[in-house]
Amino acid sequence: MKYKICVMKNAFYAQSGGVTSVINSSAYGVLSQIKESTPESKIFASKNGIVGLLENELYDMQKTKKPLELLLESPAGMFGSCRYKLPGLEDEGFYKSLFSQLEKYEIKYFFYNGGNDSADTCLKVSQAAKNFGYDLNAIAVPKTIDNDLAVTDNCPGFGSVAKYIATSAKEASLDIKSMCKTSTKVFILEVMGRHAGWIAAAGELANDANNTYVHKILLPEVPFNKQAFLDGVKSDVEQYGYSVVIASEGLKDANGKLYAASDEVDSFGHSQLGGLAPKIAGLIQNELGYKYHWSVSDYLQRSARHLASKTDLEQAVALGREAVKLALDDKTGIMPVLLRTNDQPYQWSIGEGDLKDIANAEKTLPENFISEDGFRITQAGVDYLKPLTIGESYPKFKDGVPIYEQLDLHLAEV
Amino acid sequence: MKYKICVMKNAFYAQSGGVTSVINSSAYGVLSQIKESTPESKIFASKNGIVGLLENELYDMQKTKKPLELLLESPAGMFGSCRYKLPGLEDEGFYKSLFSQLEKYEIKYFFYNGGNDSADTCLKVSQAAKNFGYDLNAIAVPKTIDNDLAVTDNCPGFGSVAKYIATSAKEASLDIKSMCKTSTKVFILEVMGRHAGWIAAAGELANDANNTYVHKILLPEVPFNKQAFLDGVKSDVEQYGYSVVIASEGLKDANGKLYAASDEVDSFGHSQLGGLAPKIAGLIQNELGYKYHWSVSDYLQRSARHLASKTDLEQAVALGREAVKLALDDKTGIMPVLLRTNDQPYQWSIGEGDLKDIANAEKTLPENFISEDGFRITQAGVDYLKPLTIGESYPKFKDGVPIYEQLDLHLAEV
Repeated sequence: MKYKICVMKNAFYAQSGGVTSVINSSAYGVLSQIKESTPESKIFASKNGIVGLLENELYDMQKTKKPLELLLESPAGMFGSCRYKLPGLEDEGFYKSLFSQLEKYEIKYFFYNGGNDSADTCLKVSQAAKNFGYDLNAIAVPKTIDNDLAVTDNCPGFGSVAKYIATSAKEASLDIKSMCKTSTKVFILEVMGRHAGWIAAAGELANDANNTYVHKILLPEVPFNKQAFLDGVKSDVEQYGYSVVIASEGLKDANGKLYAASDEVDSFGHSQLGGLAPKIAGLIQNELGYKYHWSVSDYLQRSARHLASKTDLEQAVALGREAVKLALDDKTGIMPVLLRTNDQPYQWSIGEGDLKDIANAEKTLPENFISEDGFRITQAGVDYLKPLTIGESYPKFKDGVPIYEQLDLHLAEV
Repeated sequence: MKYKICVMKNAFYAQSGGVTSVINSSAYGVLSQIKESTPESKIFASKNGIVGLLENELYDMQKTKKPLELLLESPAGMFGSCRYKLPGLEDEGFYKSLFSQLEKYEIKYFFYNGGNDSADTCLKVSQAAKNFGYDLNAIAVPKTIDNDLAVTDNCPGFGSVAKYIATSAKEASLDIKSMCKTSTKVFILEVMGRHAGWIAAAGELANDANNTYVHKILLPEVPFNKQAFLDGVKSDVEQYGYSVVIASEGLKDANGKLYAASDEVDSFGHSQLGGLAPKIAGLIQNELGYKYHWSVSDYLQRSARHLASKTDLEQAVALGREAVKLALDDKTGIMPVLLRTNDQPYQWSIGEGDLKDIANAEKTLPENFISEDGFRITQAGVDYLKPLTIGESYPKFKDGVPIYEQLDLHLAEV
């Protein structure tokens, strides 16, 4: 196949996978850097990730009149995201149609903003381009609240979730502390993290040298020891008057089965459905008889732009900018990654990661971040986590709520 | 009984019932106004509401060295709260012992900061004082996130929860909008409100003239019409691609029974336990087959000082100050209340409410605030709600999380 390589100079950007409160900041980094560094490139932003390309729905960013800076203030995916797995490279028909789409828009630079699965998508596109002789510089831009990408020291989106969970846990802990004398004794906050406990670990940041606000952290990395947990909660209530538990949705039993999906029955003999938090609450009520409250933060935690980490936001922008520089430097199949160059004070820079080492890999909490009893995070873990949450970056408010003004987006007519 | 009336000049302050993110601001109002207006009065703050008085655990505020201004920044109850119902006035033994405690601390001014039940406590103390010939000025200071107190136009604590719910709903709505093309179609946020739907109603504030972020609101005031709800959600998904539902925990079926506690079984034939949100989610999955996410904000909503409403905070302080002025004016058995003196621009002042009209009464959403189909809030409702959420008042942060420094508290040795 022959592609009209000589005229290719445009850029494609897409958002993929679960969104974050700063993925749009990476979009800002990519789009603004393209405008600065290669103003002759037209920018096409895909509607709903790679799906927009396949369905011929790309936003023509030349037509957008509002300032790109709005991206810096709005959570979630301005252009829409997707969960969509590309077929293997042997599916030539699929990739032929994909490249004919890219050719139609004269795409030379391909930016894919997402996590592990999205790195896989970007890698496949990059490899297929080589196979098909399409001169494409495909760069992945990291993003995931799960913080589980390999190679990079941390992932944009995570620092803001960590800040949200630590703040919320501290606030809820002060609440239960007020109530525990005559009422609630245990509070359980369920957080995201199917396979890795990074988000739950951030609960430890609520604590300081003088005060314990969070008493137990349940991680997917540590098989649930029910008796030790119950003993611990009882001891917390006896010592502090209450116990605050941060529970990762991915908590597993000793057989590696999701605890929230296990066969255990409640006091009425019914299997319990719903989330992990109500299940843990039921366990505490049945075994210890304590009054409880529970919360499931779900989407709230990952879209809480009103409480974004400034460090996280700055890194998200910087990685977007660097992705463009790498693409213009004729690189492909890589991802700009965060390097921690100094611990205290925290300093970071940006390096390159090969997508082969990142796609579909998963980084869980290292052992030395987990306390001996498995229910807390060590000082090493705190030292790693803390800098990622530092700094506030408030959105603009109008009439009591954040504005979150959206860009005017117009589909390309190509 | 004879009390040494002539020497009584001290003040008692206590927090009671579920806490809020600004109840400490009312404490600041009370305590700072006492210091200003009657510096000869010693202040005793009760540990865990009225329980501290009964158990002889009062904090001697003369011993506190840190600035009272810390109260303005910390959520929940700095002195501890309680859920404790006083016996009827016929229980003379109880009140005798209560007044002997008050006499011991030479209390003349009694401030009780809480909601309906707490107003009842304050009323009983006020009435019992008259019966016993104890010269006590007992003033209730309003506080409840439920916004269900009679007489007052609104309640301190509510504006901040409303701001939190509207902001969180808007953020989560942008999230699901990003994901709905290939993934989640319905998001359900469960909020507090057992008997009144004020908090759920605040979800409407996420919407503006150009955008609908929240599509359905489920109120305790409107019996759950399952079919109309399912039809509406289906229609939302067809029209917008997704549906965002704010559900009040107090939602009831046509027989007035809590919907979350009803006998309906899920697709496995089991009764569903846990909260309302997972139950609604299961209903949507079974009947419409949509992928869903759900969140339960629970304590997070009422302790989110990081997102407090400045209007709410200012009113909380002002009511605390006014309570002191009323007490010094020799009033008893009353509560300072908020009056809305102008709609647009919103203006407010403070009046007096008789505790007999407030204790144990409950104000639900008026009919004209609820849309005809029962699933939305009218413009009249929005006009009422909006001003209560206006203005931001951020706490100080250190290392990524709010500081929420607590006062040094020392028990009185009397």
